Amino acid sequence: MAQSPFTPKKSAELPPVAGVRLAACEAGIRYSGRKDLMLVLLDAGTCAGGVFTRSKTASAAVDWCRALMPSAAVRALVVNAGNANAFTGMKGREAVEATANAAAKIAECAATEVLIASTGVIGEALDPTKFCHRLTDLAAAATDDAWSDGASAIMTTDTYPKLATRKAEIDGVEIVINGLAKGSGMIAPDMATMLAFFFTDAAIAPEVLQSLCAEAVGPTFNAITIDGDTSTSDTVLLLATGGAAARGAPHISAADDPRLAGFAEALSSVMRDLAHQIVKDGEGASKFVEVVVEGAEHDAAARKIAFAIANSPLVKTALAGEDPNWGRVVMAVGKAGEEANRDKLAIWFGDLAVARDGEVDPDYQENEGARYMKNSELVIRVDVGVAAGQATVWTCDLTHDYISINADYRS
Amino acid sequence: MAQSPFTPKKSAELPPVAGVRLAACEAGIRYSGRKDLMLVLLDAGTCAGGVFTRSKTASAAVDWCRALMPSAAVRALVVNAGNANAFTGMKGREAVEATANAAAKIAECAATEVLIASTGVIGEALDPTKFCHRLTDLAAAATDDAWSDGASAIMTTDTYPKLATRKAEIDGVEIVINGLAKGSGMIAPDMATMLAFFFTDAAIAPEVLQSLCAEAVGPTFNAITIDGDTSTSDTVLLLATGGAAARGAPHISAADDPRLAGFAEALSSVMRDLAHQIVKDGEGASKFVEVVVEGAEHDAAARKIAFAIANSPLVKTALAGEDPNWGRVVMAVGKAGEEANRDKLAIWFGDLAVARDGEVDPDYQENEGARYMKNSELVIRVDVGVAAGQATVWTCDLTHDYISINADYRS
Repeated sequence: MAQSPFTPKKSAELPPVAGVRLAACEAGIRYSGRKDLMLVLLDAGTCAGGVFTRSKTASAAVDWCRALMPSAAVRALVVNAGNANAFTGMKGREAVEATANAAAKIAECAATEVLIASTGVIGEALDPTKFCHRLTDLAAAATDDAWSDGASAIMTTDTYPKLATRKAEIDGVEIVINGLAKGSGMIAPDMATMLAFFFTDAAIAPEVLQSLCAEAVGPTFNAITIDGDTSTSDTVLLLATGGAAARGAPHISAADDPRLAGFAEALSSVMRDLAHQIVKDGEGASKFVEVVVEGAEHDAAARKIAFAIANSPLVKTALAGEDPNWGRVVMAVGKAGEEANRDKLAIWFGDLAVARDGEVDPDYQENEGARYMKNSELVIRVDVGVAAGQATVWTCDLTHDYISINADYRS
Repeated sequence: MAQSPFTPKKSAELPPVAGVRLAACEAGIRYSGRKDLMLVLLDAGTCAGGVFTRSKTASAAVDWCRALMPSAAVRALVVNAGNANAFTGMKGREAVEATANAAAKIAECAATEVLIASTGVIGEALDPTKFCHRLTDLAAAATDDAWSDGASAIMTTDTYPKLATRKAEIDGVEIVINGLAKGSGMIAPDMATMLAFFFTDAAIAPEVLQSLCAEAVGPTFNAITIDGDTSTSDTVLLLATGGAAARGAPHISAADDPRLAGFAEALSSVMRDLAHQIVKDGEGASKFVEVVVEGAEHDAAARKIAFAIANSPLVKTALAGEDPNWGRVVMAVGKAGEEANRDKLAIWFGDLAVARDGEVDPDYQENEGARYMKNSELVIRVDVGVAAGQATVWTCDLTHDYISINADYRS
C-alpha cells in the first residue's frame, strides 16, 4: 500500500506522563514482522472516561469498556491489532474476559480495572492464549517513553503511526496530555476502526473525564469522515493518572470548574490534531479537505449538510480529479434534507467565490477554480442562506487507491 | 465509456399508446452526433401525476412540473439532455417558461399544459432559443412508434436506452403502459439524474394517477441506489391519455377502485423493470445486487438498514472485488442506527448461509462464498433478529470505472 502523501517527516516526540508506562511487541496475532500488541500500565488512582461507536454490532471489547465507563480505577489498557473480536458471539466475550484476567494478574488489580480495545479482522475468533502470555514481558519492559512503539502497535492499514501531545495548565500547574490514535485505514479483511487513547497526569474525577471526553469528540473525531462507514470498534478513552497532584495540581471534581478551561482547550487541540492525521491517512487519500457550512437553520443542520458534502462519492471523486465541480456541491447540499435557500446559496473554494445568489458567480473563472484544486489541502465553504447555524468537518478524496485497497480479495 | 455488461441484446419493442405521438432530434444542446431533444404530444384529455426529487436545490424544470401536478390537462412533454437547467437562478425559470410557451404554440394549448424535464450539466444557463425552433419539426415528425428514439434522446451517460412495456386489463379492456427512463449515469459535469416517463391509454383521473405514481415509486425507483447521491432533477411522470375509453375502458376516478388492481400491478412491474435497468447501467457497474433485509423493527427500519448496506463504500468495493466480505455487511447493519440484535444476526449470500446467531455459520466455507461472488447478479439477505419488518433494495458495485468516470476533469 502506498504511503500517504501527508506522512509527517518526523513523528511527534511525546514527553512522559507521570503514572503511565507502556510497551509493545510482536505477538503475531495476524501480521508478522511488526508490533501488534500494546500494554499500558497506569498507577493506582487513574480515572477514565470514554466514548464508543454507536454501531448496533459493536465489538466485545467495546461492550466491555462501555460498561466500565466512567471509572475511578483503571490500572491497565491492552490493545491488539489484527483481530477486531467483533461478531464473534460468546467466544468474543470470553476472549475479552480472559485478556482482562491475564492483565489483572500482572497489574495486580481487578479484571474490571483493565480496559481492552481490538482492531482488525471481523468475525474470526480472537484466541487470547496466543498473546496473553506476552503481557508479563510487556509489563517488565514498560517504560515512560515507548509512545511511538505503542502508536505503531495499534495500526492496521494506517501508513504512519499517529501521535500528538499538548501541554496545559490547571491552576498554574503544568499538565501533559499525550494521545495515540489509529485511523480508519482498513485492508481486506480489516474493518474501519478509529481508536484513540489520551493519557494525562491531571487529577480529574471520572464523571468529569467522561464529560470532557464526550464534549471534545464532537468537533474533532466526530467531525471527520473517510467513507461514511462506521466501525464496530471505535473507541476514545481519556485516562487521567493524577500524577500531577504531586506537583500541586488540584483535584478537579466538577465539569464546570473554571480551572479546566485550558485543559479542555488542549484536549480539543490534541484530539483535532489526531483526527486530522487520521483523515490524512485515509485510504487512498490524496487531498485533505475542510468543509465549512454556514447560514444553516441551526448547527446540527449545518453539520448534516457538511457531512452530505463530505460523504458524497460525486464530490469526493471530483476532488480526486482536481475538478472544481461546484455543481456537485449544490447537489450534496440539496440532498442533505436540511433547509437551504437555493436562490441565496453561495459557494467558495478557498477564497475563490464560485457561486452566489443561487447562480455561478459572474466573476468566477473556471481556470482559477482548476488551479485552486491542485492544492493538497482544500477548503470548501458553503453559505446556505437560511440562518446562522454553522459546522466544520474534514474529509479526504475518493481515489482509485481506495477501490484497490478495498476491492482486493481477502487472502 | 465502457458499455454496461448488462446491456440488453435487444431493446424492448413498445406498442403504440392511443393518444401519444413522439419524436426526437439532434439539437446540439451539448452533445454532437446524437439525439438530445424529445417532444411528446398528447391528445386532449390527457391527465398526469408525478413525483420529483426531494432535493432542496431542485432544477427549474422540476419546480415547473411539481407546481402543475396532478394535472387534468397535459398536451406536451419536452425533455432535453445535455443541460439540467439547475442552479441557474432567474434565467433558469425564464428558460422553462420560454420552452413551455414555444411548445404550447405548437400543441395549441396553454403553457401550463406543457411538462418539461432537463438533464445534463448543472449551473450553466440553458438557452431555449438553441432548440425551441426545432419543436415545430418534431411535432410534424411525431409518430406513435418512436419510443426507441425518445429513450435515446434523454440519455446522458447511460450506455443503453431504457424502455419497458406492460399490458393490463381494466374492467376487461386491455390497457398499455409504456415507460422510458434514463439513469444516474453522469459524466463530468453531468449530474446524476433519474428521469422516467410512463404513458398509458387508460382513462384515470389526475388525483388517482398521482396516488398510483407515488405508491409505485416506493418499492421501485425509490428502492435503488447507485452511489447514494440525489439529483436536482429526478422526475417520474405518469401520463394517461384515456385513449382506451374508445375501446370501452371505464373512467377511473377513485384510487381505491378495485378495477385498478391489475393496472397498479403492471405499473409496479414496468417501474421495477426500468429501475433495474438503471442500476444495471450504473456508472462502472459490474454486479447487480439485491439487498433483502428481514426481521427489522418495522419496514422503514428494514429499508434504512438495506440502504446502509447498499450504499456502503466498503460493501460495494468488496462486491467489485468478488470478496464475500460479510464482515462489512455486519458493519453496515451496525451503522444504520436501527435496532438490530447482534447476537441473532444472520446473513445469506444467495442460498449460502454465511452467519447466524451473531457468528459465522459453522458450516460456511469461504471458498463457496468466493465462488458465489463471481456471479454477475447477487442477493445479500440479512435477518436482523428483532421483529418482522422487511425491505428489498437494489444496487451495483463500486469499481475503478466509477472513479474514472467521475474523477475526470470536465473539459
